[in-house]
Amino acid sequence: MKPIKIGIAGTGVVASGVVNILKRNADEITRRAGRDIEVIVVSSRTRAKAEALVGNDVQIVNDIMEVARHPDVDIVVETMGGYEPAKSFVLEAIAHGKHVVTANKALLAEHGNEIFKAAQDKGVTVAFEAAVAGGIPVIKALREGLSANRIEWIAGIINGTTNFILTQMREKGWTFADALKVAQELGYAEADPTFDVEGVDAAHKITLMSALAFGVPIDFKAASIEGISKLAAADIAYAEKFGYRIKLLGITKRVSNGTTDGIELRVHPTLIPESRLIANVNGVMNAVLVKGDAVGATLYYGAGAGSEPTGSSVIADLIDVTRTITADPEHRVPHLAFQPDSLASIPMLPLSAVKTRYYLRLTAQDRTGVLADITRILANHDISVDAMLQTEVDDATKEAHIVIMTHVSQESNVDTAVSEIKALASITGGVVKLRVEELG
Amino acid sequence: MKPIKIGIAGTGVVASGVVNILKRNADEITRRAGRDIEVIVVSSRTRAKAEALVGNDVQIVNDIMEVARHPDVDIVVETMGGYEPAKSFVLEAIAHGKHVVTANKALLAEHGNEIFKAAQDKGVTVAFEAAVAGGIPVIKALREGLSANRIEWIAGIINGTTNFILTQMREKGWTFADALKVAQELGYAEADPTFDVEGVDAAHKITLMSALAFGVPIDFKAASIEGISKLAAADIAYAEKFGYRIKLLGITKRVSNGTTDGIELRVHPTLIPESRLIANVNGVMNAVLVKGDAVGATLYYGAGAGSEPTGSSVIADLIDVTRTITADPEHRVPHLAFQPDSLASIPMLPLSAVKTRYYLRLTAQDRTGVLADITRILANHDISVDAMLQTEVDDATKEAHIVIMTHVSQESNVDTAVSEIKALASITGGVVKLRVEELG
Repeated sequence: MKPIKIGIAGTGVVASGVVNILKRNADEITRRAGRDIEVIVVSSRTRAKAEALVGNDVQIVNDIMEVARHPDVDIVVETMGGYEPAKSFVLEAIAHGKHVVTANKALLAEHGNEIFKAAQDKGVTVAFEAAVAGGIPVIKALREGLSANRIEWIAGIINGTTNFILTQMREKGWTFADALKVAQELGYAEADPTFDVEGVDAAHKITLMSALAFGVPIDFKAASIEGISKLAAADIAYAEKFGYRIKLLGITKRVSNGTTDGIELRVHPTLIPESRLIANVNGVMNAVLVKGDAVGATLYYGAGAGSEPTGSSVIADLIDVTRTITADPEHRVPHLAFQPDSLASIPMLPLSAVKTRYYLRLTAQDRTGVLADITRILANHDISVDAMLQTEVDDATKEAHIVIMTHVSQESNVDTAVSEIKALASITGGVVKLRVEELG
Repeated sequence: MKPIKIGIAGTGVVASGVVNILKRNADEITRRAGRDIEVIVVSSRTRAKAEALVGNDVQIVNDIMEVARHPDVDIVVETMGGYEPAKSFVLEAIAHGKHVVTANKALLAEHGNEIFKAAQDKGVTVAFEAAVAGGIPVIKALREGLSANRIEWIAGIINGTTNFILTQMREKGWTFADALKVAQELGYAEADPTFDVEGVDAAHKITLMSALAFGVPIDFKAASIEGISKLAAADIAYAEKFGYRIKLLGITKRVSNGTTDGIELRVHPTLIPESRLIANVNGVMNAVLVKGDAVGATLYYGAGAGSEPTGSSVIADLIDVTRTITADPEHRVPHLAFQPDSLASIPMLPLSAVKTRYYLRLTAQDRTGVLADITRILANHDISVDAMLQTEVDDATKEAHIVIMTHVSQESNVDTAVSEIKALASITGGVVKLRVEELG
């Protein structure tokens, strides 16, 4: 069979991974795909950069749209990232009947519904394994491997930068700022780390997995997002005393009972029992835990970023598309796991509706009756205490920390209680609230 | 679209899982598959059992071959296990143009080449996600998700019975016999546990993964198999002192250097550093660690057996086949990851060629010079010692244990050294040899 012809937009880290792996493993890839997969055109604003990557046998163009419209290209690979010109490029390629492979989670989380609709109408595939958890084939697991299941929830460490920072904070007792600095020096965090540390990147990824798991449209705006930049080393240490690790998790959960039917979609630092496998995923590694009603809990672990891990997923998508390229569009694996005409309309739940366990840390003056005040407020709001710890009073500040682990409570009740606790005269240093997930 | 029609051979644990999940999750499964998946015929020698499972609306037949030949059936599910009549059933179904889904690792490890050839010739699919690691979609990961990679090695905890026994031995200090008895009482081990505890079941599974990873024919006879029935609680405890856990691993490795090119295929109790995620996979759970050249190490964890986890994988295969049922056979995902006309011929290496680290435990009389004798023998055979531990002499037996962790050595050298050590007059209680894998 004749080779499948690829056009790549971009010459950055992901593109390098794709090109290098395609070259190095050409033989095995052809033996798997059934035909050669050949890069025939690359776009770059810097010709020298493109030449360094692909040599002289591959056409190099200035304008990405030449890739999107190239008459010989079967599949385009979008490696630019960001919203524009990535979106225009992808839509133009679709309009020209090209299949698309992309690693762009931001683009798909914000504009995926429009993009997948365009692909559906045109009868082409938009594949995005590399957009979530880098080299880990978790999109495939959700879309195909677990397709028998009613998915109950997903909880994932899906941002390597923040996992590296949290690991350093725990192992070395560093502050967030110290750990971030080291992450930047090592190239694990960008100069402007906002997207990573504030949880936006993780929210893009869990939004995509939420749609795949529950058969609903992609709804990034419904995500509640809290990053790790305000996390104190003290809370990591207290969590450890209770047997928990703190990880930035992307969580999506189907809540379905007598009173509520909806989907939770949230990213925040989370206490996890240290005995869970996912609590022991450290450094820049990623892991996604998926709970299905038939299979139970399954976990997928690996490198969540980097040139070759991301390239690995891009090429897996290229091989998937290649293997089944003659299939009629009605008989392809649907983009979002569910057939596009059978997406469900399930309400996205606000954070106030979440029911889980909570970790609270109060900084209080050492006065008689402070514990009585706090426990009375918690009881008033239907929050029962599972465990409590009070530190010795600091000689200088005359303050002590009170750490409370609650039983399952409702977020809105906890928020009201926290407001009332903050208003107590003895609470001088504010209240830290973190969520706890057992992931059992 | 009209429903896809299923025939099931068998009414046991796996069949129940399949039928129950198809019923419970019918709506989501249809939304994913694009059409209904409907069981229309079941074979059983006990009509009452079949009726209890599928009710009265499904045809029940005595003879499995009626399922294989049923004119309305699109896909048959083989849930009987064992070699016959499973093999005849599968071949008959293929001959009648049916797609086949099976959980039968023994059948595929022994007769897979013949079965996949028949399927290929007839243009049908034989899917077997459930045959390896139960509900974990690891076949899909190897065949599709990691298809960009040159796979370097796979190491898997792929037998829940033995993992449960080893976990109990470690946590409770039990002997193998005690732990086996409890496993049998809890239904985790069969009355005749040979296939599980002697490593045969794990060998079937790693043999299949080896073929998928390296693009070679299935070669069960090449597997070196050692179970856990002779494992002593003492060795689990000593391993722990060195920071290792003992797991029964299925291992397959591509060895490719100046002097050797071949594939290792082996099952044996293995010391793993306790810091590795897979060392912390306990109880009946399974996990498979796959190292690819591009992606690095990835891990897949979940339930390796049981009615619904296995059913989850069977149905994932049914949905896969359904989604792409109109594809021309040239454009389906190949059964064994590589196109059938491009399998490689790579020699399978004997155990004697393995190079890894070793754990040796010697029981020796407390005599002057014994350590000198041992270390001289090891040095003579090019085996260098990484760590050593000697216990206090037992007052009753006058014997002590000497535990040695070697650097990387060749198995044949270690075997020769062990023979010579055993022949020393001071070695009164034999020598225990176990393999160590760093899995880094």
